[in-house]
Amino acid sequence: MTGEPATPLLDKVHDPRDLRKLDPSQLRQLADELRTETIAAVGQTGGHLGSGLGVVELTVAIHYVFNTPEDRLVWDVGHQAYPHKILTGRRERIRTLRQGGGLSGFTKRSESEYDPFGAAHSSTSISAALGFAVANKLTGQPGRGIAVIGDGAMSAGMAYEAMNNAREAGSRLIVILNDNDMSIARPVGGLSAYLAKLVSSQPFLNIREFAKRLSRRLPEPLHRAAKKTDEFARGMAMGGTLFEELGFYYVGPIDGHNLDQLVPVLENVRDAAEGPCLIHVVTQKGKGYAPAEQSADKYHGVQKFDVITGEQVKSAGGPPSYTNVFAQALLAEAQTDERICAITAAMPSGTGLDKFQQTFPSRAFDVGIAEQHAVTFAAGLAAQGMRPFCAIYSTFLQRAFDQVVHDVAIQNLPVRFAIDRAGLVGADGATHAGSFDVTYLATLPNFVVMAAADEAELVHMVHTAARHDTGPIAFRYPRGNGTGVAMPAVPERLAIGKGRIVRASEKGAGKVALLSLGTRLAEALKAADALEARGLATTVADMRFAKPLDTDLIRKLMLSHEVIVTIEEGSIGGLGAHVLTMASDEGLTDHGPRIRTMRLPDVFQDQDKPEKQYDEAGLNAPQIVDTVLKALRHNSAGVSEARA
Amino acid sequence: MTGEPATPLLDKVHDPRDLRKLDPSQLRQLADELRTETIAAVGQTGGHLGSGLGVVELTVAIHYVFNTPEDRLVWDVGHQAYPHKILTGRRERIRTLRQGGGLSGFTKRSESEYDPFGAAHSSTSISAALGFAVANKLTGQPGRGIAVIGDGAMSAGMAYEAMNNAREAGSRLIVILNDNDMSIARPVGGLSAYLAKLVSSQPFLNIREFAKRLSRRLPEPLHRAAKKTDEFARGMAMGGTLFEELGFYYVGPIDGHNLDQLVPVLENVRDAAEGPCLIHVVTQKGKGYAPAEQSADKYHGVQKFDVITGEQVKSAGGPPSYTNVFAQALLAEAQTDERICAITAAMPSGTGLDKFQQTFPSRAFDVGIAEQHAVTFAAGLAAQGMRPFCAIYSTFLQRAFDQVVHDVAIQNLPVRFAIDRAGLVGADGATHAGSFDVTYLATLPNFVVMAAADEAELVHMVHTAARHDTGPIAFRYPRGNGTGVAMPAVPERLAIGKGRIVRASEKGAGKVALLSLGTRLAEALKAADALEARGLATTVADMRFAKPLDTDLIRKLMLSHEVIVTIEEGSIGGLGAHVLTMASDEGLTDHGPRIRTMRLPDVFQDQDKPEKQYDEAGLNAPQIVDTVLKALRHNSAGVSEARA
Repeated sequence: MTGEPATPLLDKVHDPRDLRKLDPSQLRQLADELRTETIAAVGQTGGHLGSGLGVVELTVAIHYVFNTPEDRLVWDVGHQAYPHKILTGRRERIRTLRQGGGLSGFTKRSESEYDPFGAAHSSTSISAALGFAVANKLTGQPGRGIAVIGDGAMSAGMAYEAMNNAREAGSRLIVILNDNDMSIARPVGGLSAYLAKLVSSQPFLNIREFAKRLSRRLPEPLHRAAKKTDEFARGMAMGGTLFEELGFYYVGPIDGHNLDQLVPVLENVRDAAEGPCLIHVVTQKGKGYAPAEQSADKYHGVQKFDVITGEQVKSAGGPPSYTNVFAQALLAEAQTDERICAITAAMPSGTGLDKFQQTFPSRAFDVGIAEQHAVTFAAGLAAQGMRPFCAIYSTFLQRAFDQVVHDVAIQNLPVRFAIDRAGLVGADGATHAGSFDVTYLATLPNFVVMAAADEAELVHMVHTAARHDTGPIAFRYPRGNGTGVAMPAVPERLAIGKGRIVRASEKGAGKVALLSLGTRLAEALKAADALEARGLATTVADMRFAKPLDTDLIRKLMLSHEVIVTIEEGSIGGLGAHVLTMASDEGLTDHGPRIRTMRLPDVFQDQDKPEKQYDEAGLNAPQIVDTVLKALRHNSAGVSEARA
Repeated sequence: MTGEPATPLLDKVHDPRDLRKLDPSQLRQLADELRTETIAAVGQTGGHLGSGLGVVELTVAIHYVFNTPEDRLVWDVGHQAYPHKILTGRRERIRTLRQGGGLSGFTKRSESEYDPFGAAHSSTSISAALGFAVANKLTGQPGRGIAVIGDGAMSAGMAYEAMNNAREAGSRLIVILNDNDMSIARPVGGLSAYLAKLVSSQPFLNIREFAKRLSRRLPEPLHRAAKKTDEFARGMAMGGTLFEELGFYYVGPIDGHNLDQLVPVLENVRDAAEGPCLIHVVTQKGKGYAPAEQSADKYHGVQKFDVITGEQVKSAGGPPSYTNVFAQALLAEAQTDERICAITAAMPSGTGLDKFQQTFPSRAFDVGIAEQHAVTFAAGLAAQGMRPFCAIYSTFLQRAFDQVVHDVAIQNLPVRFAIDRAGLVGADGATHAGSFDVTYLATLPNFVVMAAADEAELVHMVHTAARHDTGPIAFRYPRGNGTGVAMPAVPERLAIGKGRIVRASEKGAGKVALLSLGTRLAEALKAADALEARGLATTVADMRFAKPLDTDLIRKLMLSHEVIVTIEEGSIGGLGAHVLTMASDEGLTDHGPRIRTMRLPDVFQDQDKPEKQYDEAGLNAPQIVDTVLKALRHNSAGVSEARA
């Protein structure tokens, strides 16, 4: 590896068993080398960096003290697990991170026995660790459940639900609160203020004092027999009332970069805990890499970069991202409409709402990682006459599905859902793909569901949603950049439930009609060119709405074309299913056109370059052409003959 | 009203404005009459009783002190709101509760301006109240947001998410924690233990002391100018550290049946609070009605009953409920399989798992109102080799949709989902209907989705799920009793993705094939009789699986029948959509049979008798017959001619 850093000690550590043979005095060097290697790797691949750098020492200490993989270590979200991957047999592949066929950017069960539970969405780790701990308790197997969870992730309800049940596991459950005072943005809310108070109101745990209370001297392991439970409990209780009140022993705060403190504390908890423990570790996101430490987001997610300077590879210019187009359009609406509010669940910059926050701080709400609350809070705002926009990625809106059904749809409240990252998402892979939103929203009465075909359409849809006061409305748009289409000077209010013909076959009627929803429209148009070149007159419609459907348009196209193909970037149950259902309701399928639906395949697609993912999904122009040609060739005679 | 209790004072109170004209000394009598009236009404209608009886005094006090409806009062869940309905102009209709065309058993926006936010699912009230409070703050309107939430509902994550954001509202947010140490069952977890400690460790708030700290005498209202903020804060802080740490002023505990305490405390909070307040009120579920107080579940939900004796109308015997069949079947599986675990989210008796809890206490987990945690905890158990059954009503599983996608489906973990209350649910209405589960589960890769056609099928499905270790599997079954079918001596392991012909038309082929999923099978069979009587040979298939589909069976039936009708008790996107999609994928729709899909309509159906709901939904035998006949009559010529 030319130009790679020298890592003599790390080179000898192929997995945690090697690590556990080291002398404690060697761990500092190992951590330094691990940090260097992490920086070098992410410099080549891009990815999440700041979080991983913050937990280098913690990663070393956990694997040194605990008996992984038998002790089940669950990294919350998992984007901080690159150092963990390097230490657990995946160093050879670390420079394939987030690439097609390479390592996932998150933990993943199929990658390693050291990843007992995959992650990527926040705040699942305590529940999963509790599951491991309880299973082992029931079957009498050894092995703890260890969750490492950030302070931002602690703001999500499911972390609290899990803490509320921690007693089930007894001492087999260890929660390590990785408090770096950051999620992706600065954390918000009462819990965050509370943690800050905990950290500032007391010095780091005095390890000597801590040990004395346990009636033992370091580093000799504590014998269970000698332990006095009461003293242990009191020794733990140096703060952290909130956690104690939920049933945890609290230990901390601890300097998460000081191995001389981390290792003995973890050893003590390992050997002496009598109930679930929460260890409060204070770390610094981006630790040990100056450009990261100095950056506002601590290099949360980065492009490839120069290790010496920290300079990231600039993405080529080109059309604006959909996220930015949404953000600008919403800002423009809010300038003239004081009732517009914006809500994000800890993603102000990911959703583009950071600009809204700056311009209209009183109308912007970052509620933390709390999608459930975000949606019902928005419903309350709407019920009182505001015009709330909930900007949540497709995959994260899943977390608020019940609130969408129960608080928004049933009450028919005009909450606006701006659904970013709809469809495939490239390097983030299956956990972040927005595959299901059209299906799970269009099945709900009262809902209007739109998808933007390009960035100009997105502007129209923001405007349409702002003006739609009669019920819930959602619009989806993908990750990445727009198509470069001319932007409208004035946004247009779209007619609800009406699509548009984008390309008419010359005679009005034709052989083929392509019904597209969303940004696959560009591929549909390419396919139309190819079909026309083969003499097949092709109409292309942008449906705009998955719900309500433009039944007039669909009926007209079905009655005037031989082949109808729907195209969407979503799973089964979306546009195609709704078009087929409407057509069969009306009897249009009885002797009608040959209908085909193109959609995401029935698999969770791994990370890859977007264009490869689309190819794998079968949603590019050549595959549209192929679908049409196959439909035209389909041997109906065989079918008829088979009928007895 | 013959036989009705005398309620002279209540008779004069038509809405809260009348109430607020009363002298404080009259409130006791009013509360007593309100309680009597509530008991009399529910005696006639059945419904939720214990929760309402517990909040009679609280209901009176809130409306007396606060300026409803301008102050937005949100009752969490809403099943305790019958006394509230009586006081807010709905007394005339209170004996129509939960009946078709009558009052909802929950709060509902369309019923009254005093119901600013509908409820029925737990733990939404703080988020909604925060929405109201913030909207008014932004627009400069008067009006607080007041949430009344039970201690059980506090175990749900979204309550915590909302509390974490309470500061947004300042003093406009008031949370009243109604602590009756019960949800439906006994509450569980760390929070419950904590609340018990809070209540037991200190006497009820000394109102004289409380007042003194506020430098004022009762009952003269406190002047804002005279208030010393620090003292107020300290006066509040008589416990409740957990809530304080999340940013609330805490007041309590208070005896929730003592109006002399409730009214002045609420007045003080109304006039003097400087930030969000949490008032901890201790109540007794079923208070004031001996049969309820003495019952284990405090008459949480009751049939019609005799007011004097408390004796409930027994439901007629007949076949066992699906819930009981599931519970017995799971118990039988667990007898021979130590890996089987059962998980409920605060519904041990509703799901039938109470028996499992008694028999296998170590393998039964009531996690509280915490569906998100329940599912990921189950995923952790499954990842460690257990065979977890998550028993959650269809409508409540919506709350864990992201966990189902992210932690179960993507990881392909064998979590078993027992989905009770699938389909329409009668008196509980739209908020409890299980309409969407087939759609939102069958769109997920890796999932197996079954629906039981009768109680014998349910036994087979429990067995099949127990043995299915290769990925997630769900089976749905409705509210109510089985069909009385003979029960199998030994459960059968069903072939995954295979349906069954229940009734073959005599010649193997036929005119009509009915493809049923779930318990509408009985209606499909009735319809088949009617169709055969008209000379239309009819095949009936029980598909058993919405995913994977039995493509062989569907293909065969489509090639041998003229009309295909799918029937299911679920919304668009389920069986019908999957059958149509598969058929169009294969070109079976090109010149194939006339396909129709029968499903729940695209509206939220209000409460009514189940048979009426099915009629409204169009899912009874006559409507199946009608659908078939219309399909046969459908004028394909018209369609062909219209094609230009």
